[in-house]
Amino acid sequence: MGNTGGWQKMIEEISIRYLDCFRDKHLVDPIMIEGLPGIGQVGKLVAEYMIHMLGAEKIGEIHSIYFPPQVILDENGLARLARNELYFYRASGKDLIFLVGDHQSTSNEGHYLLADQYCEIAEELKVLRIYTLGGFGVGHLVNEPRVLGAVNRAELRPELEEAGVTFDRNEPGGGIIGAAGLMLGLSAQRGIDAACLMGETSGYLVDPMSAANVLATLAKLINVPVDPTKLNDRASEMEKVIEGLVEGNKMQKDEELSYIG
Amino acid sequence: MGNTGGWQKMIEEISIRYLDCFRDKHLVDPIMIEGLPGIGQVGKLVAEYMIHMLGAEKIGEIHSIYFPPQVILDENGLARLARNELYFYRASGKDLIFLVGDHQSTSNEGHYLLADQYCEIAEELKVLRIYTLGGFGVGHLVNEPRVLGAVNRAELRPELEEAGVTFDRNEPGGGIIGAAGLMLGLSAQRGIDAACLMGETSGYLVDPMSAANVLATLAKLINVPVDPTKLNDRASEMEKVIEGLVEGNKMQKDEELSYIG
Amino acid sequence: MGNTGGWQKMIEEISIRYLDCFRDKHLVDPIMIEGLPGIGQVGKLVAEYMIHMLGAEKIGEIHSIYFPPQVILDENGLARLARNELYFYRASGKDLIFLVGDHQSTSNEGHYLLADQYCEIAEELKVLRIYTLGGFGVGHLVNEPRVLGAVNRAELRPELEEAGVTFDRNEPGGGIIGAAGLMLGLSAQRGIDAACLMGETSGYLVDPMSAANVLATLAKLINVPVDPTKLNDRASEMEKVIEGLVEGNKMQKDEELSYIG
Amino acid sequence: MGNTGGWQKMIEEISIRYLDCFRDKHLVDPIMIEGLPGIGQVGKLVAEYMIHMLGAEKIGEIHSIYFPPQVILDENGLARLARNELYFYRASGKDLIFLVGDHQSTSNEGHYLLADQYCEIAEELKVLRIYTLGGFGVGHLVNEPRVLGAVNRAELRPELEEAGVTFDRNEPGGGIIGAAGLMLGLSAQRGIDAACLMGETSGYLVDPMSAANVLATLAKLINVPVDPTKLNDRASEMEKVIEGLVEGNKMQKDEELSYIG
Repeated sequence: MGNTGGWQKMIEEISIRYLDCFRDKHLVDPIMIEGLPGIGQVGKLVAEYMIHMLGAEKIGEIHSIYFPPQVILDENGLARLARNELYFYRASGKDLIFLVGDHQSTSNEGHYLLADQYCEIAEELKVLRIYTLGGFGVGHLVNEPRVLGAVNRAELRPELEEAGVTFDRNEPGGGIIGAAGLMLGLSAQRGIDAACLMGETSGYLVDPMSAANVLATLAKLINVPVDPTKLNDRASEMEKVIEGLVEGNKMQKDEELSYIG
Repeated sequence: MGNTGGWQKMIEEISIRYLDCFRDKHLVDPIMIEGLPGIGQVGKLVAEYMIHMLGAEKIGEIHSIYFPPQVILDENGLARLARNELYFYRASGKDLIFLVGDHQSTSNEGHYLLADQYCEIAEELKVLRIYTLGGFGVGHLVNEPRVLGAVNRAELRPELEEAGVTFDRNEPGGGIIGAAGLMLGLSAQRGIDAACLMGETSGYLVDPMSAANVLATLAKLINVPVDPTKLNDRASEMEKVIEGLVEGNKMQKDEELSYIG
Repeated sequence: MGNTGGWQKMIEEISIRYLDCFRDKHLVDPIMIEGLPGIGQVGKLVAEYMIHMLGAEKIGEIHSIYFPPQVILDENGLARLARNELYFYRASGKDLIFLVGDHQSTSNEGHYLLADQYCEIAEELKVLRIYTLGGFGVGHLVNEPRVLGAVNRAELRPELEEAGVTFDRNEPGGGIIGAAGLMLGLSAQRGIDAACLMGETSGYLVDPMSAANVLATLAKLINVPVDPTKLNDRASEMEKVIEGLVEGNKMQKDEELSYIG
Repeated sequence: MGNTGGWQKMIEEISIRYLDCFRDKHLVDPIMIEGLPGIGQVGKLVAEYMIHMLGAEKIGEIHSIYFPPQVILDENGLARLARNELYFYRASGKDLIFLVGDHQSTSNEGHYLLADQYCEIAEELKVLRIYTLGGFGVGHLVNEPRVLGAVNRAELRPELEEAGVTFDRNEPGGGIIGAAGLMLGLSAQRGIDAACLMGETSGYLVDPMSAANVLATLAKLINVPVDPTKLNDRASEMEKVIEGLVEGNKMQKDEELSYIG
């Protein structure tokens, strides 16, 4: 054979595959909800909880060479590529499209390419509004985590404030990194409204408490009720775990003191 | 001459060169076995041992700008580019294609591009099944290393379990990184069955003991007997070395104690 | 739908958008002034101060996948992509084009691509000269920071020296990194004159003192007067802050000594 | 203007510019000598010394986005892009082409692309043999540094050994990194003979002693006499500096001892 000649890249840098079930689906005033992994996994917790509770239907998969180069195993040892997923739910009067997944990009450029692709999907599906969800790490435990907001058009702010979202002049000071941020900027260029809801969180732990607050706010905004019981339960459990840790820490300190004494 | 004008990239990002000996070879139910460098060099040890013991014939070379930018010298000072290699062995009723080599990709994106190229080769050669081999690092010495498995189609699992492969709900928790993992995911997209065999290993040392177990399992699965004597010998030597290290460590501790005493 | 087929990158690696206000503007002997983020933020301080004091008009925006993957929030929570900006000011007998922005490239290759794009803009706008502004970090506080210079054509040097710019045989020894440097080299290839003005600075702090000196030098060179009062005020404030730090440090040392004594 | 539409990359990833003086030059049995920056700057010292002593003529420049993103200043403050250069010298019966420069690639992929481009130049100029020069770091001072060799065709070895080059089974163990190595592998694919000469060196210091040995060996191999006096002088100076350091170190230790005593 000798040299096989010019190599051709077969794999796409980003590939979107819609499932057949989604073929010819006519969408009604769709809203896109992004909940990819990030600080405190807040966005991921909210979006995946909604998918679970609403019984949303999977409609597509996204693979990319910008995801980490690995496969993920399910409990049966079945391997699949790292991926993002699209889910669909028909609420009364509006359709919801969820964007969730395993990972974000491993490179800076990949972040832009992926986020723009997500906006391309939103444009193709004629999405009216995008909500991106995330955590805002403050570096310490937060007793009553607020939901901070950002928008890509000034006119969107009052509606969010009415739903209880805080706009803080100084936070988040460093901007918003990754898909939750970039989708705001990149969708604006396509004329799509987008808002980001960020739950305050320590940044050290998966934070269902913060997620529960973001969920309540989002449900109000999109007017789609989602029973928060299970997420609240998980938040309560987490709270106990943390109390235990704090208590244990305190006891340890007391012991140290008595030992010294 | 002045400016020579538009630069053209001459080098291919990935190049596959088949040796002339492989021209027009008609393959019978080929199975591909990947054993590239990785944790404990387990996969590499198994695949290279099989090539050596079976007397498999080299049929191709793969070069890539995603490999480390270096040449490797043989004992005579002859330099060659870092590369991967393809070997061929005609077993009774089936052909084996081995994929071995010096390195994996140095970049995340390169991992995807290379692994997809390996699957492209498998598809071109009409490979029926891919076995990827690797080590699963547990962080401590393992007395009786198990062979853990992963598959890219659920139906493949029983066959592996019959051959002694363990499917552990929780391991490997973090997925499988690099070619051994990606080839499972990417070959599934091409409709090729693939399984990964991972030998438990500390992750700190080259591990012929773990490799011997993977070899025994693979030989059973593909029904191609390979005399394990030399690999077992190497494993025994390694075991003595480790015992020596442990013993030495223990003696040192005893000495320290007697010194204190 | 199944696979949507070949993915197409929609986003440009670098995009330049001119505002409509700039349409058909006829430029007179334009000079470009680059003040992107860098050491001591010296260049950024000078260029943004000039834009502010002269009331220069925004004429364009530059976005790129080589900028950090984030959005920046204004005080109202309005998000926008990281970007660079072009400003325009009609001085008597000449037009000024300012290049300022949030970030430089996150990758080495991106630095080249962006800097070349900036030179492409300069060439399109028929810019006669480029001034790139920056800081030159010396690693210690500088009482009377000099303005060091570099040129991309030997004949430009006397004019700069006349304006008080120092050309030091040995500094900056390591060359000039980023846009301020690359634009000199890349504009030379397009036949555009360019000079770099670097204010000496510690490298540890934002340095309005150094910036005030660069401003004075640049204003002389382009013969466009800019009232330096506010920048000098800021420099004075900064000086007091630093004096306070040094004093505090001294006092602390004295205390330590008296404590020892 | 609005959006200017599709961005086009103007800058080439690698650009080669030959000077006009080189136009129509007919080359006689050309030999290429690569001496880019590397361990101990050995290769760079040798090639630049030869250019200087032979009075070789500059014939071309290479720029690349894979070089560090910076300009380099000459003693007059004139800035130029980081670059590599080609020099030409007509020896009796053969022509020499030197490849020297400021930097090697900053990325792994860039190393391959640049080294292949250097080989492309060699092929265009019908180069008969390439010598790549480098240092081989041993981690300690070497009194009588050997010249180690590597070749890209086994038949080249005897000629090198005759000239005093050592071929050591075990060194350099890790292969040869960067242009000096890759050019051996990549030129082999183009059918061009190439050898690498590596001077043993500590790896911590610029090493004219090691360079002098490589120079002597290379001069013998290409049969082009080069007066080594100045390089030997520099080596002698360096030797005194090091002796001083060692002596000083010894004295310091003696002092410490007497202080204790």
